[in-house]
Amino acid sequence: MRVAGVMSGTSLDGIDVAIVESHGRRISTIGVQSTPYSEATRSAILDVSSTTTTAREIARLNFQLGELYARAVQRACRRYGPVALIGCHGQTIYHEGGVCTLQIGEAAVIAERTGVPVVSDFRPRDIAAGGQGAPLVPFVDCLLFGHTRRTRIALNIGGIANITVIPSGAAFDTGPGNMVIDALVREHTGGRQNFDRGGRMAAQGNLNRPLLDALLADPYYRRQPPKSAGREQYGAEFVARLKQTGLPLHDLISTATVLTAATVALAAAPFWPDELIVSGGGAHNPQILSHLAAFLPGVALATSADYGIDVDAKEAIAFAILAYQTWRRRPSNLPSATGARHPVILGKINF
Amino acid sequence: MRVAGVMSGTSLDGIDVAIVESHGRRISTIGVQSTPYSEATRSAILDVSSTTTTAREIARLNFQLGELYARAVQRACRRYGPVALIGCHGQTIYHEGGVCTLQIGEAAVIAERTGVPVVSDFRPRDIAAGGQGAPLVPFVDCLLFGHTRRTRIALNIGGIANITVIPSGAAFDTGPGNMVIDALVREHTGGRQNFDRGGRMAAQGNLNRPLLDALLADPYYRRQPPKSAGREQYGAEFVARLKQTGLPLHDLISTATVLTAATVALAAAPFWPDELIVSGGGAHNPQILSHLAAFLPGVALATSADYGIDVDAKEAIAFAILAYQTWRRRPSNLPSATGARHPVILGKINF
Repeated sequence: MRVAGVMSGTSLDGIDVAIVESHGRRISTIGVQSTPYSEATRSAILDVSSTTTTAREIARLNFQLGELYARAVQRACRRYGPVALIGCHGQTIYHEGGVCTLQIGEAAVIAERTGVPVVSDFRPRDIAAGGQGAPLVPFVDCLLFGHTRRTRIALNIGGIANITVIPSGAAFDTGPGNMVIDALVREHTGGRQNFDRGGRMAAQGNLNRPLLDALLADPYYRRQPPKSAGREQYGAEFVARLKQTGLPLHDLISTATVLTAATVALAAAPFWPDELIVSGGGAHNPQILSHLAAFLPGVALATSADYGIDVDAKEAIAFAILAYQTWRRRPSNLPSATGARHPVILGKINF
Repeated sequence: MRVAGVMSGTSLDGIDVAIVESHGRRISTIGVQSTPYSEATRSAILDVSSTTTTAREIARLNFQLGELYARAVQRACRRYGPVALIGCHGQTIYHEGGVCTLQIGEAAVIAERTGVPVVSDFRPRDIAAGGQGAPLVPFVDCLLFGHTRRTRIALNIGGIANITVIPSGAAFDTGPGNMVIDALVREHTGGRQNFDRGGRMAAQGNLNRPLLDALLADPYYRRQPPKSAGREQYGAEFVARLKQTGLPLHDLISTATVLTAATVALAAAPFWPDELIVSGGGAHNPQILSHLAAFLPGVALATSADYGIDVDAKEAIAFAILAYQTWRRRPSNLPSATGARHPVILGKINF
C-alpha cells in the first residue's frame, strides 16, 4: 500500500510530503517533496497562533491550509504516482502537552480534492489518554529500526536533538541540535548562509574546551528522562551569551558543534547502544557525525537513509506510517514516550 | 446496532443525546436525554464564537466540551444501555456556508472516555464538495420517511420552520417557527413563560387578518427555494413591529401562530404532499397543527413520533443516523439540500 505523509512543522518552512510503500513491516520511501509556504501563509499562521484572533480566522485558515496540503500531495503524486491513503499532521497552532492541542488544515478538503482517505489530527487522542500528545515519531522509530538482539538509538538532529532508545521506547530531547550552530552561521555570514554546509566552518575553528565544559555544566544534561528542551532554551539569549566570550565565531561554531555531539553522547551512552541511526539536517554535517563517533566508541554509526528513510523527511514519513497504523486500526502512540496511560489508535479518518 | 447521536445547537441550551437502534432501514428511538450547559460553558462558547479570542482558548474549550459530551453520553448509556457507535455534531463556533465551518468538542476525548468509536465533524466535507455544509437533516428525513408512492413533507418547527420534500429532497426554511410566538409569550408573561404551552394563549386571542396579510406580503415567502431564513429575520425587530400595531398581545400571539402555519402551507402546497410529518417544539402546539390541517386540506397530518422519532430530539437522532452512514462508508449529504456537487461521506471517524 502506498501512503503519503504530510508534515509541516512549527518552523513554518512549508509542507513536506513523503510517499512511502509498506510491505508489512518493511517500509520503503518512494519519494519526498517540499513545498515552501508563501510569506502570506506563514504570517497568517503566526497571526492565529500567537496573537488574538477570531473563530472566523481560524475556520478560514483551516480550510485554506487544507487546500494547500491537497495541492502539495497532488504535486507529489504527479511525480511519484498515486497513493491509497494520506496521513496529514496539520499545522499546530497551539499545543499544551497533557492539556490540549490544536492542529489545522482541514482533512476533509484534502480527501475531497484527492479522492483518497485522509488520517489527520493525531495528537488529541494521546492527550485524552493522559499523554503529552508528543513525541509521536518514537513509535515509528521502534517500528522501523526494532531489532531482536541489538539496542539501537534513533537520533534526530533538527533544531533540537532528540533520541529514541529501541526497543525500550525511552524518548527525549538531548539538547541543542542545529539551532545554535545555525544562528552562529547566520551571524558570521550576515545572513547569507543559514547553516554550516558540510561542517566547513566548524572544521576551520577550534574547540574551546573551557567554554564547552561551562556549557555542559547545565543540569539539563544530567536530569533523568522524560525531559524536553524548548526552543527558547537555545535561542537568541543562548547565542548572545556565547558571543560575550569574545571568541572568534569559527571557534564558537566549532564548540557548538561539539556541544551537540557531546550532549547526544551523554544521553545515549547509559543505554549502551549497539548502533546510532541519525536523521534530520544534522545528518548532513560530517563534523557532528565524526564527533559522535569519537564520543561513542564501539557504537556503529548509520543514517536513516541506510534503512530506506530519507534523513530530511523522517517526520513526513512517520505520519505516513502512523496513518497506515490507524487505517489498520492499530494503536500508534508509545506510552513510554508520551506518558499516556495506555496505547490508543491515533487520529481521525476522513473517507 | 445501537448508536448515540449528540447534538448541541446554536441556541446554546445544552447537549441532547439520543440513542437509536438501526435494523437496516428501520430506526427506533431507544431514549433521549438532555443535559443543559452551565452558565460558564454557555458564556465560554459565546466568547470564542462572537469576540476576539486565542487559539489557546479554542483549543482548551475544544477539549472541555469533549469531556462534557462524553459525560452526557455516559449518562444516557447508564439509563438506556451501551452503544456501539457515537455521532457527535459538536458545537458550531463559526459557519460560513460554502466557505468554511468550525465545530468543536474533541471527539478523541469522547472516544477515549467511552471506549466507543465516534464520528464527528460532519459539515466540512460537504463544504469541500461545494455545498453549504447545511442542512444535513433532510438526508435523514428522506431515509426515515421515504415512501415509494407517497409524497411526504417533513416539517420541523424550531425557532425557524423548515421542510424537506420527500422523495425529491428539496429542503428549505419556510419562515418563522416558534421564535416569534415565544418572544411574544415572554413579553406577555414578563418572562415567566418561554413558550405558548398547549397553544392556550393563541386560543384566547383572535387572528388579525389585516396584520396577517401584511406579514404574508414579505417577498421571502414567494421566493423559489433554495432559501434560508436567518434568526435575525424574526428577532427583536420583528417583534417590536408587531407590538407597534397596538393590538392585544393575545391577538398578536394568535396571529403569529397562524403566520407560522400559513407560511408552512404556502411552501408545502406546491409539492402536493400526501402527508406532513411534524417535529420540533411546534409539534406540541395544537393551534399550529390545527391551522396546518385547515390550510392543507386532504394532507394527512402526523408527528415524527408516529414514525418512532421523538419530536424533540430529531436532530440528535439525525446525527446518530448520519454517524451510522459514515461508519458503513455511505455518503450522507443531500446535494439537493446543501448544493454540493455530489454525494460525499461526511465526518471523521475516531476509533
